[in-house]
Amino acid sequence: MKEDAWIAAIRRWTGGRRRADVIAGIGDDCAILRPAAGQDLLVTTDLLIEGVHFRRGWLTARQAGWKALARGLSDIAAMGGEARQALVSLALPAWADERWAKEFYRGMAELAEKWNVAVVGGDLTRGRLFTADIVVLGSAPRGKALRRDGAKTGDVIYVSGALGRAAAAGYRDVPEPRLALGRRLRGRATACMDLSDGLVLDLHRMCAASGTAAELDGVLPAAPGATLEQALFGGEDYELLCALPPGARPPRGFARIGRMAPGRPAGAVWFAGARLKIVGWDPFR
Amino acid sequence: MKEDAWIAAIRRWTGGRRRADVIAGIGDDCAILRPAAGQDLLVTTDLLIEGVHFRRGWLTARQAGWKALARGLSDIAAMGGEARQALVSLALPAWADERWAKEFYRGMAELAEKWNVAVVGGDLTRGRLFTADIVVLGSAPRGKALRRDGAKTGDVIYVSGALGRAAAAGYRDVPEPRLALGRRLRGRATACMDLSDGLVLDLHRMCAASGTAAELDGVLPAAPGATLEQALFGGEDYELLCALPPGARPPRGFARIGRMAPGRPAGAVWFAGARLKIVGWDPFR
Repeated sequence: MKEDAWIAAIRRWTGGRRRADVIAGIGDDCAILRPAAGQDLLVTTDLLIEGVHFRRGWLTARQAGWKALARGLSDIAAMGGEARQALVSLALPAWADERWAKEFYRGMAELAEKWNVAVVGGDLTRGRLFTADIVVLGSAPRGKALRRDGAKTGDVIYVSGALGRAAAAGYRDVPEPRLALGRRLRGRATACMDLSDGLVLDLHRMCAASGTAAELDGVLPAAPGATLEQALFGGEDYELLCALPPGARPPRGFARIGRMAPGRPAGAVWFAGARLKIVGWDPFR
Repeated sequence: MKEDAWIAAIRRWTGGRRRADVIAGIGDDCAILRPAAGQDLLVTTDLLIEGVHFRRGWLTARQAGWKALARGLSDIAAMGGEARQALVSLALPAWADERWAKEFYRGMAELAEKWNVAVVGGDLTRGRLFTADIVVLGSAPRGKALRRDGAKTGDVIYVSGALGRAAAAGYRDVPEPRLALGRRLRGRATACMDLSDGLVLDLHRMCAASGTAAELDGVLPAAPGATLEQALFGGEDYELLCALPPGARPPRGFARIGRMAPGRPAGAVWFAGARLKIVGWDPFR
């Protein structure tokens, strides 16, 4: 297929009911969108590269498409937002034939459908390695988006699910973005982010941004089969990590894992009386 | 440097005055933006991959950064929009050291500064090939964004500059996005797009979307040193291609190159009495 035939096919694969918020989707130089009044706009972009973020054979094409979009949706969830639209840039190597590409878009479209996200554009090229960059646009009521830098000493730290799940599964499964849980934190959490690089590294980042330190409880909600090390340092769980003021009731679905302490130094993470080394998934490590 | 140190450095390199339209920039899960009321939102995303879109040695790091952003800004120009914010995802191979990356961001920041574009986020990873995905967000007054599908039979076709410039330069120069010229077409052009893949292929796309055909004039505004073939088929000029109703005066800076004819068949491009073969830059060719 030539580029124009690919674009026509992608348009079919990604569906496209008419929506009031999408004036023009795939096929022009830009997508034209109409944001709702009174809402702030959330934007995130994430690369998924063969050999870095996934290996052929570890995920099916459909799982790779799901995962690419799920990572972006998880960023919207972390802000307490609603996901609205997505764009996807792809570089297809020779091994990724039409069938593979179709399955990739199918996986993406399934997850998009589930959360009422419109696929409105992207870019397409050849490349030596399969590369996808996903852009997700979302919204939150003006001034209400959750950030990672607002945690205070004394806040209680929660997570939205079991830790170390992806690591225990050998990174061969795909995540469910926690959009519904994220929205429940709006107006309640002082800080929120998603767990992509491991609890300790991501919690360190929340603490560093907030000027606090964290004291983890002695017992953590580890996923079935996950080791303590996987629960502390395993990446790609895509659960939400948040802080709530002391005494605040967490929404259903969140488990307590510790509390925020004075930042001496900011960013320190304590567990079982010891200061943990800050490690996790870091491509530059 | 570890990932967090890279992100802190990128924040410095890309500047960051406070702006009313940027509530939170680099450093959280999403950028938080505040679109102006009464404006439609324009979004584009473009990949720039080593070995596909540029070769090391052909462009300096600074030129590569400029070019990556320029391609996105050109898409906003093609819609008659104002560019507002950009995000950039990078995969850095081992050869792209801190100095190279700094120069890349410097080239991007120079062009961003020129058009008052805020760099508000992105993604960063390692990779075997240098890969950048640029997202640009822009705006246009509600319902006023230019599209490629509105040309009518009888409309006159214009371009914003000389054709074949990039091809004649061996694709070793960097483009100037035509944002100011694009805005002047708002409310005047029936169709507009940017020339990324060559005049004939892109004009074919405008005609196919509009249901018209195109008859090129006998003489084209070729760039100094460009052959007729480079003017017709050379990619990466990033000039604007537009159609105006017959009798409408084009804005300063546009040169006439032909007119729209009935679409029999839609998408055909005629030159000197012959129907041209539709070729140009196509990664899937």
